[in-house]
Amino acid sequence: MQQLTSQALEQTIPPPTQTSILIIGGAEDKVHGREILQTFFNRAGGAKAQLAIIPSASREPGLQGERYQRIFEEMGAKEIKIFDIRERHHCENTDWHSYLDTSCTGVFLTGGDQLRLYSLLADTPLMTKIRVGAREGRMALAGTSAGAAVMSHHMIAGGGSGESPNRSLVDMATGLDIMPELIVDQHFHNRNRLARLISAITSHPERLGLGIDEDTCAMFEAQEKLKVIGKGTVTIVDATEMSYTNASKVGAADPLSLFNLRIHILSHGDEYNIRTRIPTAAPSL
Amino acid sequence: MQQLTSQALEQTIPPPTQTSILIIGGAEDKVHGREILQTFFNRAGGAKAQLAIIPSASREPGLQGERYQRIFEEMGAKEIKIFDIRERHHCENTDWHSYLDTSCTGVFLTGGDQLRLYSLLADTPLMTKIRVGAREGRMALAGTSAGAAVMSHHMIAGGGSGESPNRSLVDMATGLDIMPELIVDQHFHNRNRLARLISAITSHPERLGLGIDEDTCAMFEAQEKLKVIGKGTVTIVDATEMSYTNASKVGAADPLSLFNLRIHILSHGDEYNIRTRIPTAAPSL
Repeated sequence: MQQLTSQALEQTIPPPTQTSILIIGGAEDKVHGREILQTFFNRAGGAKAQLAIIPSASREPGLQGERYQRIFEEMGAKEIKIFDIRERHHCENTDWHSYLDTSCTGVFLTGGDQLRLYSLLADTPLMTKIRVGAREGRMALAGTSAGAAVMSHHMIAGGGSGESPNRSLVDMATGLDIMPELIVDQHFHNRNRLARLISAITSHPERLGLGIDEDTCAMFEAQEKLKVIGKGTVTIVDATEMSYTNASKVGAADPLSLFNLRIHILSHGDEYNIRTRIPTAAPSL
Repeated sequence: MQQLTSQALEQTIPPPTQTSILIIGGAEDKVHGREILQTFFNRAGGAKAQLAIIPSASREPGLQGERYQRIFEEMGAKEIKIFDIRERHHCENTDWHSYLDTSCTGVFLTGGDQLRLYSLLADTPLMTKIRVGAREGRMALAGTSAGAAVMSHHMIAGGGSGESPNRSLVDMATGLDIMPELIVDQHFHNRNRLARLISAITSHPERLGLGIDEDTCAMFEAQEKLKVIGKGTVTIVDATEMSYTNASKVGAADPLSLFNLRIHILSHGDEYNIRTRIPTAAPSL
């Protein structure tokens, strides 16, 4: 029985990432210092970067794809392909498959609607190549806004704000499972999303809640450690020590109780280990 | 030295409240069940209640005063006086002083602007009578919205939202010191105020942060214990175990780091002891 549980766990939770996965809270600077995008570019090889941009979350994939293409061209990328996937069968494009197999050093998922992104990419061989490639360190992977949310296994698909935490405040769905340990919310302090992240965590207290502000990034550099870059904060919601919740006793719209959440607010340069669940302060300047 | 510190502490932190002090997160139900207002009314003596309404935080004190007067009249109060204080010298009204000395069983502070309320009432003998009367259990005291914020010693006077926590996000001032152990914020999840409450707590980590949602009340019934009533949640931010903050190292507008905050989300019937800092779940129905 124990073995079965352990096997089941292994199936749902792949080994931790080996290299750069950048989870961006949306609205990253595209004009001035471009710290986050520049970091992704550098991690993908800098002048040797061969990138794939997937704008499929967006309702305007053409515009979004070109926008990021221009930015990475300006930075000096060696090659850029836009995977303009608008139907699931587009994922069969053999040119893209061979690009991922042989050349691609970085994949960028734009913002938009995470459910749309999921429905186009989930369970396709193309997505498997990206997920495995990113987790095994063969390519960098970045996702912003919807592209960040979709990294979870239990994905926040949408929800409300301005209310007390309650289960009906958040719509959960399945994500692309790139960082299954996490439940990611974005535009976090900007759009008042504590209540919905807490509502999501109540149903999955073994996962780690990450609330990422705009123009801010949780960058997984190696193994299980994230580092914060960008302008705002990453809020960690750790329910490991949660001693009580009324979630199973109350209606979906009733306010939730949760006792003993541990919360860390991390800013630029701070690190956090998602296995040990211990934060480390940025080195003093 | 130890004695001096202990004396200084006694001067700044009075003994805990003995009876009903109701700290309300604003927008309490005034039409239907009126749970919170009814509770205040009951705690103030029910049919024997002799109330004082202080609408001075409001820009429309006449309207606000009459509104609450009508509600408590409908509930059957024995006597209601509106302390319509628009200038500090109004606090010298001998009729009101004698009402507080001999008859008054409950005082209600309406919403509006907590700085205005403070500037009209602070350090007046009238306010001292109310504070001491409430803390010693001779009268009930309720404050909603601005009337809740003003209960703190370190008072959140205003601030912004939609940003990562940073010191310039919150304007601090001095409050009426009724519950000096606390820093109170209101309309909490409704108006996205986690970042500003955290920013306030960073400067005063020995105080307990209370974020109270609309139509929700933290009621101090006896000694040091609060109980939640109403529709939403009370969020407790406890920085006792905070292991790190960058607050002293960064600029006022830079994002804050805070490691190891303990947070409790309390809903209807849950209790929390502000001395032991331990929550207790509402009894199961």
